[in-house]
This record gives sequence, C-alpha cells and structure tokens, in this order.
Amino acid sequence: MATTLKQVFRMKEGTNESSYAKASYLQKEVLSLTKPLREKAIREFYYRERPTTLCIADLGCSSVELSNLSPVFGLLESVENARRELGKEPQEYQIYLNDLPGNDFNTIFRSLGSFGDKLKQEMGDDFGHHFVNGAPGSFYGRLFASNHLHFIHSSYSLHWLSQVPKGIEDNKGNINIAKTSPPHVIKAYYEQFERDFWSFLRYRSEEVVVGGMMVLTLIGRKTREPYSRESCYWWEILASALKDMVVEGSIDEDKLNTFNTPFYAPSEAELGFLVEKEGSFNLNNQVQISEVSWKPNEQHKNSHPFESDHDAFTKCIRAVTEYLITSHFGESIVEEVYHKYKEFVKVSMGKENNVFINITVSLTRKG
Amino acid sequence: MATTLKQVFRMKEGTNESSYAKASYLQKEVLSLTKPLREKAIREFYYRERPTTLCIADLGCSSVELSNLSPVFGLLESVENARRELGKEPQEYQIYLNDLPGNDFNTIFRSLGSFGDKLKQEMGDDFGHHFVNGAPGSFYGRLFASNHLHFIHSSYSLHWLSQVPKGIEDNKGNINIAKTSPPHVIKAYYEQFERDFWSFLRYRSEEVVVGGMMVLTLIGRKTREPYSRESCYWWEILASALKDMVVEGSIDEDKLNTFNTPFYAPSEAELGFLVEKEGSFNLNNQVQISEVSWKPNEQHKNSHPFESDHDAFTKCIRAVTEYLITSHFGESIVEEVYHKYKEFVKVSMGKENNVFINITVSLTRKG
Repeated sequence: MATTLKQVFRMKEGTNESSYAKASYLQKEVLSLTKPLREKAIREFYYRERPTTLCIADLGCSSVELSNLSPVFGLLESVENARRELGKEPQEYQIYLNDLPGNDFNTIFRSLGSFGDKLKQEMGDDFGHHFVNGAPGSFYGRLFASNHLHFIHSSYSLHWLSQVPKGIEDNKGNINIAKTSPPHVIKAYYEQFERDFWSFLRYRSEEVVVGGMMVLTLIGRKTREPYSRESCYWWEILASALKDMVVEGSIDEDKLNTFNTPFYAPSEAELGFLVEKEGSFNLNNQVQISEVSWKPNEQHKNSHPFESDHDAFTKCIRAVTEYLITSHFGESIVEEVYHKYKEFVKVSMGKENNVFINITVSLTRKG
Repeated sequence: MATTLKQVFRMKEGTNESSYAKASYLQKEVLSLTKPLREKAIREFYYRERPTTLCIADLGCSSVELSNLSPVFGLLESVENARRELGKEPQEYQIYLNDLPGNDFNTIFRSLGSFGDKLKQEMGDDFGHHFVNGAPGSFYGRLFASNHLHFIHSSYSLHWLSQVPKGIEDNKGNINIAKTSPPHVIKAYYEQFERDFWSFLRYRSEEVVVGGMMVLTLIGRKTREPYSRESCYWWEILASALKDMVVEGSIDEDKLNTFNTPFYAPSEAELGFLVEKEGSFNLNNQVQISEVSWKPNEQHKNSHPFESDHDAFTKCIRAVTEYLITSHFGESIVEEVYHKYKEFVKVSMGKENNVFINITVSLTRKG
C-alpha cells in the first residue's frame, strides 16, 4: 500500500531552532522575491471587484508565526493602499490558512495576538475586521465552499506530490528523479504531477469566484530535462548520504531501494500546458522565474552570526524532509543522515553556487 | 492590570488521561441532554431556509476529537435527514470550530480523518462536501464575516466571563460569588456578565443572517439569588482547598485574597432579560432547564471502571480550572490543591447528590 502524503508529511513543529518556523530562510527569501507579482495581482483584483468580504487563502502555509514568515500582511497592506486610493469604507477580510491536518496550527494561532497588534499599529485607525481561520486538509481535494474565495496564494508547496508515484520500484539508488533514473520512472513522476496539479486546479475552480485570482510559486526548472542537476541535485546528495549509511551497514540496502520522495519540479512549459489543458484558469502572461541561493541571505546571517552556510541549509532541508525520512527509516538514523548531508553540502558549497529555480504563475478564474 | 481571559484561559491540552478531551464526561452528558433541542432547531432552520452552503459554528468547542465529544456529527445528521425528506441534492457544509487561540486545535485537526471516515460510513453515498475550519479568537469580539453564519452552537462556555470583574478586592476568602460576598461584589459579577453577554449577542448579530439561529447552553441557576449553593458550591470547595493551604503556609494569604475566577451562572430570568434588552434575537419560548449530576454517568464508568466518582469529578474540574490556578499561584501548588479538592468532593458526595443546573436557550436572528 502506498502511503499518501496526507499521513506522513508535515513540517517540523514549534518555534525552536530546528523547527520549520525558524529554519526556513529559503522560503522567506522566495516570498520576498515574489512579493511584487503577488501584491500586484491582489491589487488588480481589488480594483476590479471590491467584494464586501475579501476571502483570501494561503495554501500550504506551514507552521509559521503570522507576523513573521507569512505573505498575509503584505497582501492586506496592498489592498488597504488600494482601498484608500479609492476612498472606500473599511474592508472586511476573511483569511484562511491551509495545510495538512498534521501541521502545527497551534503555533500559528498563538501568534494571532501579535499579528493583530501589528495590523492595528501599521494599518491605521480605519482598518476593518479581519478573521483568520485554519483550514486543515489536502489541497489535492476540496477545501472550501463553492464560489467562496477571491484570492489564493501558495508558495513552495505544490512541488510536493500527493503520493510517491506508483511503479517506480526500479529507481534503485535514487530517491527522486536522477540522471540514472529509468525513463519510465521520470514519466511516472511527471504523470503524478500532472494528476495532482490537475486536481488542484479543478478543485480550486469550484472554490474560486469568476475573476478570482491565484498566485502560485513552485520549485521548478529552466531546462527541458526533468533529470537536470538544477532540480535534482539536493535529492541526489540526500541519496548519497543514505547510500553511505548502507555501506556502513546502518541502513538496509532494500530499505533504501524502496524509498522515493513525493516531489516534482516542473518546467514553465509543463505548467503552462497543464493550466491550458485543465481549462478553468487563464494564465495571465505573468510568469516569473526566480532563483534563490542555497546560502542564507544577509538577514538570516545577521540573526544567526555563528551558523555556517552548510549548517543553515541543512537545517532548512531537514525541516521539510525529516518526516519523509523518519516515516520510512525510523527515528534512529536521522541525526546521522543529516550529519552526512551537511558534509556533502559543505563540499558542494565550497565549489559552486547552487540555487533553487522558482516558477511563479498568476492565474485568473475564467468566466 | 487585570489579566483578561484571552491570555490565561485554556483547557488542558492533548488526549491523555488528565486532558479535557478525556476528562469531560460532564460536558458530554450536557451535550446529550441538549441534543433534542439543538437538533430540532437546526432542522427547523434547514426546512425554512435551505442555503447552498450551510455555515455552522461551534463556539468554545475546546480540544476534543470530532467523532467523539462534539455536537457537529448530530447536527449534520439532522440536516441530512431533513434533506432526504425534502428530496434535495447533496448539501455543502462549512463548519467553524471556535475557541481561544491558546486552545489545542492540533488535537481537533488530527481527528479530522476519522471524523471524515465516520461521516462517509454513516451518512450514505449522497453526503455532500463538508469543510471544517478552526476559528481561533474570543467570542466576546467579532469572529466571522458579516451575515455569514446560519447556525451557532455553544455549550458550557458562556458562563466564562471575559475577565474577572473589577473592584472586587474585598471578596476576601472567596474566589467567586459566595454567601459571604459583599453585595457590590455580586453586583460586579452580574454587571460583567451583562456586558459580556451583551457583546456576545451584538457581535453575533452582525455575523448571523436574518432567520439564523443560536442554541446556547450555560451553567446557570434556578434560584433568584446568585449566591445560592447550586451555582456556587463547586467554587466554595475549591476556595476551601486553597484556604487550607494558606493555613499550612504553602499559599500566601494575600495571594489568595487577590484571586477571583471569571465565572457567572445566570438565572433564566436574567438571560431572558438580557436577550430582550440587546434586541437582535428572539427568544423562541424554548428554554430548557436541565440538571447534570457531579457523579459520572454509566458510560464514563464503563470506560473507567477503577476510577472513583470523586476522582472523576476532580479531573473534570481540574481540566477547566487548572490554568486559572497556575497562572495566579504558579505550578508548584497545583497537585496539592486538587488533592485537597478531591477530599472535599469525596466527603460531599458521601452526603448529598450535587448537580449543575444548565440553561439552554434557542434564539433566532430578527429581521
């Protein structure tokens, strides 16, 4: 039986140093890179539609404190600016934060007080009501009432598949697509992505009002080949760490051979093709390709002055992959896996500047 | 500075033996007693209005597993029965679960899978979509978008005040209203309840559609006097436990004298008066007074065969009062407080049958 992502996938809980909330400088950097496109889109929507209650959803929000690593503040700020330009009355906002039911929503909810304080302080006296709701569930199924949402945002989530593709038992020695993967494995990964992304668009089309918008950012690739280094290398070194442990005898070879990860990094062409094929949304000729370095940015370095780059990157990757590792291999090997991973990262960082390629698309629900 | 309920009040987390989820046989018994009135109300609403998406909120839901201690299943079952009688298409449900942001929502959300399975199993193939959202916040403020909700339920929550009334410093030796409380203390408690309940009704009136309904159950009293034993005794014995600890020197007398609890048990007449005075809702001549014994019911006894009645009751009270105690007196004294409490309960249970009086009202939003 294939284990579905629903059951095993979650970010590291809480707010301590190794948690997702603290370790995710990559996601923060990406949110910053995609801010202009996202805020232009919601502004455009607001100018056009001005609903009584503006319903916004952040899909795959993970467990972050709202005043820190969340796009919500910036989205509200853009709408508030537009509202003042239009001389409109205070606006009501309904904000849904979605992630899988295993996500640490408690951490988010306990940050609502400081988020409210920040809004009060920075938005001025005529800021209307805002209601923040948790919407637990998989975005590969229905999440919201019909024709309810005006604006959907999702960043660094849709590259996660709903499950590991079936029929890829002979992807031996690899844990995702790699140069040595048989062609049918690559095909199986693409087809799983196709099914998942299609479901995502179809379910969202039922939930988003006509004219409503979505801004989605995924890890992707610039190359045609799904097995190119730019999208696969971070998995390849995790595979190397695991293979070293097979050699050392702490992981069984068969156990490694049956391990694959539910992840696919699409190209811009693949995304465009799938959006058109599903047919509910227009791709607004607004595709942004950006790059984010594996190395932490200045802001992260300033708040973590004694942390090496390879340490920071490993923590970041660990926060999003640890559940996949422990649910397959158990808890006992996890420290050693990431210790080895860090060594590989260190060597690589000494030689080259690795980046993630991000693709951001802006979509509008067709009439 | 008065500490508000928002900051200190929460139920005991998780699903272990002393948590709210496991200890709350009283709340479960009350939900069972009020089930007919609640389900009659939602059925009546559905027959009358039949909205495309039925929006239901449970206010003060605490951290319970959905398939176990929650009124939601029964509400959906009633609507589904009505829907089939009417020969209507599958219905869409939007369900909001509200409690303070410190509530353990993770426990609720992790029970969504089994709740979904139960619905699928028991509701038949033509059961529509249901979406469960967490809505963290105080119900003494706005929680939901304007004109959004059709049905509100709240059980065993509205007797908790938003804060300890001000100006009751001379309620010495007591921790809530008691026979020996000065009259102005009793007045201050009533006035705090009046302000809070008024806010509750006023905010809900903005959120509930015209014709929408609310069914609210509170701990109340049958007597005219707010200091009668039936509503005060459970606080009086908690005060006795604390006073014993003052005598023993483990609690400072001044510390006890400055401790009061944010709780008020209204009479039916007071509730009716306040509903009429606020004016947004009609009291549907449907008031139910019920009693629930301190002693655990058969169902609880069957699943906890080796637990004494006084142990069970103390766990139940501890789950809802522990945060009040520890946030004022610290963690160190808490075991001893409830040990003493249990002894008082044991003596009392040997002599008399104590009950909580519950008042349930059904309200309709005026046009």
